[in-house]
Amino acid sequence: MSICEQYYPEEPTKPTVKTESIPGPESQKQLKELGEVFDTRPAYFLADYEKSLGNYITDVDGNTYLDLYAQISSIALGYNNPALIKAAQSPEMIRALVDRPALGNFPSKDLDKILKQILKSAPKGQDHVWSGLSGADANELAFKAAFIYYRAKQRGYDADFSEKENLSVMDNDAPGAPHLAVLSFKRAFHGRLFASGSTTCSKPIHKLDFPAFHWPHAEYPSYQYPLDENSDANRKEDDHCLAIVEELIKTWSIPVAALIIEPIQSEGGDNHASKYFLQKLRDITLKYNVVYIIDEVQTGVGATGKLWCHEYADIQPPVDLVTFSKKFQSAGYFFHDPKFIPNKPYRQFNTWCGEPARMIIAGAIGQEISDKKLTEQCSRVGDYLFKKLEGLQKKYPENFQNLRGKGRGTFIAWDLPTGEKRDLLLKKLKLNGCNVGGCAVHAVRLRPSLTFEEKHADIFIEALAKSVNEL
Amino acid sequence: MSICEQYYPEEPTKPTVKTESIPGPESQKQLKELGEVFDTRPAYFLADYEKSLGNYITDVDGNTYLDLYAQISSIALGYNNPALIKAAQSPEMIRALVDRPALGNFPSKDLDKILKQILKSAPKGQDHVWSGLSGADANELAFKAAFIYYRAKQRGYDADFSEKENLSVMDNDAPGAPHLAVLSFKRAFHGRLFASGSTTCSKPIHKLDFPAFHWPHAEYPSYQYPLDENSDANRKEDDHCLAIVEELIKTWSIPVAALIIEPIQSEGGDNHASKYFLQKLRDITLKYNVVYIIDEVQTGVGATGKLWCHEYADIQPPVDLVTFSKKFQSAGYFFHDPKFIPNKPYRQFNTWCGEPARMIIAGAIGQEISDKKLTEQCSRVGDYLFKKLEGLQKKYPENFQNLRGKGRGTFIAWDLPTGEKRDLLLKKLKLNGCNVGGCAVHAVRLRPSLTFEEKHADIFIEALAKSVNEL
Repeated sequence: MSICEQYYPEEPTKPTVKTESIPGPESQKQLKELGEVFDTRPAYFLADYEKSLGNYITDVDGNTYLDLYAQISSIALGYNNPALIKAAQSPEMIRALVDRPALGNFPSKDLDKILKQILKSAPKGQDHVWSGLSGADANELAFKAAFIYYRAKQRGYDADFSEKENLSVMDNDAPGAPHLAVLSFKRAFHGRLFASGSTTCSKPIHKLDFPAFHWPHAEYPSYQYPLDENSDANRKEDDHCLAIVEELIKTWSIPVAALIIEPIQSEGGDNHASKYFLQKLRDITLKYNVVYIIDEVQTGVGATGKLWCHEYADIQPPVDLVTFSKKFQSAGYFFHDPKFIPNKPYRQFNTWCGEPARMIIAGAIGQEISDKKLTEQCSRVGDYLFKKLEGLQKKYPENFQNLRGKGRGTFIAWDLPTGEKRDLLLKKLKLNGCNVGGCAVHAVRLRPSLTFEEKHADIFIEALAKSVNEL
Repeated sequence: MSICEQYYPEEPTKPTVKTESIPGPESQKQLKELGEVFDTRPAYFLADYEKSLGNYITDVDGNTYLDLYAQISSIALGYNNPALIKAAQSPEMIRALVDRPALGNFPSKDLDKILKQILKSAPKGQDHVWSGLSGADANELAFKAAFIYYRAKQRGYDADFSEKENLSVMDNDAPGAPHLAVLSFKRAFHGRLFASGSTTCSKPIHKLDFPAFHWPHAEYPSYQYPLDENSDANRKEDDHCLAIVEELIKTWSIPVAALIIEPIQSEGGDNHASKYFLQKLRDITLKYNVVYIIDEVQTGVGATGKLWCHEYADIQPPVDLVTFSKKFQSAGYFFHDPKFIPNKPYRQFNTWCGEPARMIIAGAIGQEISDKKLTEQCSRVGDYLFKKLEGLQKKYPENFQNLRGKGRGTFIAWDLPTGEKRDLLLKKLKLNGCNVGGCAVHAVRLRPSLTFEEKHADIFIEALAKSVNEL
């Protein structure tokens, strides 16, 4: 019995689409009502999570889709996973929900076990964790850790603040509120709050009208595919981008305290960074005393075939901070150097210091991935799926440009010739029973949960071939 | 039977402190172990939420304290409240926990009911809500709404972005990323992310080493107490501070798009703003086209004797945005003008768009407060408590300076002569069975849950008298 069959003996055997358009009439009716109190303009349909199961999401019209988008890459183990239901019904969960603690001041006796369970899923080389609430929050907490560390290296870890710092910070002025920057990359997505938003650089709509920090964006490599046939050109591209990073660190008007990068830029188009590039960034960050942050918010938790995507690059020495959220449900950052713990309490602090209810879910997800060897399964299924896609690519090369993600589990994407064609393909896919997302301007990104198996890949490929034919 | 007896027939009748110091030996032992994976330096003790009940919190040494701090003012209905346990065990909650939706793209059929339940608790004059994850997040989402609205008023609500805006924003430059400011007040606390942190101005330790926006802080009124004996002086103080606000709006180097204020500055020392002051701010914000944001993160959800503290000021026309978190468990902002809905989708957006699990809890809390008339009870108990405190003030005037919060439910505070004396009083209170928090440098703040009744006030007053005597 496959793992999916173990979890979901009642999982549908195929998608069912009953309505002629999506959202269907019942979705439209209920979305209109919901629209009185909620911004429903981005809604694909109104979901019925009670009826959704495993790899299938159901809407209120009774349409059931094979889900390769999984709540914008945020469902790790399928819908209504029995192991998570068990965690959700545990006494620890009830307490976490009704007696939400201010963890910093009044940590609970449950916390030690909860955190140690989460740390079992830490990336290689990391053994501490700090908790937040979302991907953007995780990245901004990481920025705070980086700024504190960066200034501590300049000032001395145990040195006290000067009177000038204590006074100026209350006016939002230097030296207490120093002019320091986080370097990120063009096409990056690190969240939509103000500091995370200043590092995000994928689409204007995410950022327009918001004040931003004057922080730099370097070039992220743009590779030629397939990778194994273009290694010389891609190495040149890496070196070109690395030179820009180094130049920006040396010349930007504000000192660069930290660098943040996604190992695969997801929202920005599924752009991959090579092992070479990620390692060279480690060398540069060490050379210039810049904190190295890897954003695994979308790439983390198994979908690339490793628990954390940057483990493919085996960066040495390990990076400083690794942020997570989405499929882990809980958010925060991992680190290993105790010097990233601020020299005084109440510097990295807030009322809740994380969300124990979501930490319990994260622990259960990590345990299931480990027990059921789901990263290995994802690698296997990803390879199977990629081969099938290469088959389609041969048949329809124009509609499968830059097919990428080989050897990266089910974390696969390709480009259509235009955004209009991509949008049309996603629409046809839905009508043919598959819920799939796009990224950047004209890319399709596959983000099924880790319970996606070969049989689901077959159903998807059939629907995809049909949909491409209909373009 | 009192409401507390209905909720908690087994609630302890008095505190029990078994250890000679706090944290006790078992707390110390377990905190040391937890310290390997968590910053335990700010911990008061290690809490046992399984054994905590109603107004009493228990630690792992078996000490049971009457809790007047309630997780930094974040527990609305006491520990292990049966109505919240019921909500936590509901099928909607299980779904919210295991199938966490990306609400913007895939809203659930449960969402309409959940949001309408939350809106039953909206402040007078507000009838829309936008959801976030924490107080800091709520404030930053409100800033985003304010910036979008402010620019839309300049540009035209339906006008499109210029090419120059679309290009410059990707470099974090104006005009796409405009130079705009949020005006806040000295001693304010609005959170610790980067934009919210730029409006926070209570203690250097919250902000040191973090880059900040160059945003202004006006003077928040400092009143003389008791208020009814100092109305002339306090009116002058209001006018003095209002003039500073107006001057800053007129002269600050960056245009002020929004103003944010707590009706009672909580973290900053329980500083109250008068009805007159809050209304005049409405007049000024209308005159200068500034968005008016009330931060009810700590003052909201009943503890002042009204559901939302600023309702005492009956501000006309109603303010633009009201943020909430803490005792509501869910976070976000209320508003009433549909123009605060951005002209395009995906501008106020993120993966989760809030946390349905916490929204369900918020709805249950609002329902209980309404059903059990808990704001009225809080007013009554607050008046009772305040009179008792006035009695102690007469006896120990030096240790009860600026007693404040009369007619504001249990949201009461006073000053000790020094921070050392305040800290000592809090320590003695704990040893005498009461968990109480401080704020600013030398204030004591009372923040019991809404289930705090006269009998609890009596126990507290007795412990307080004893503790003050021991100073």
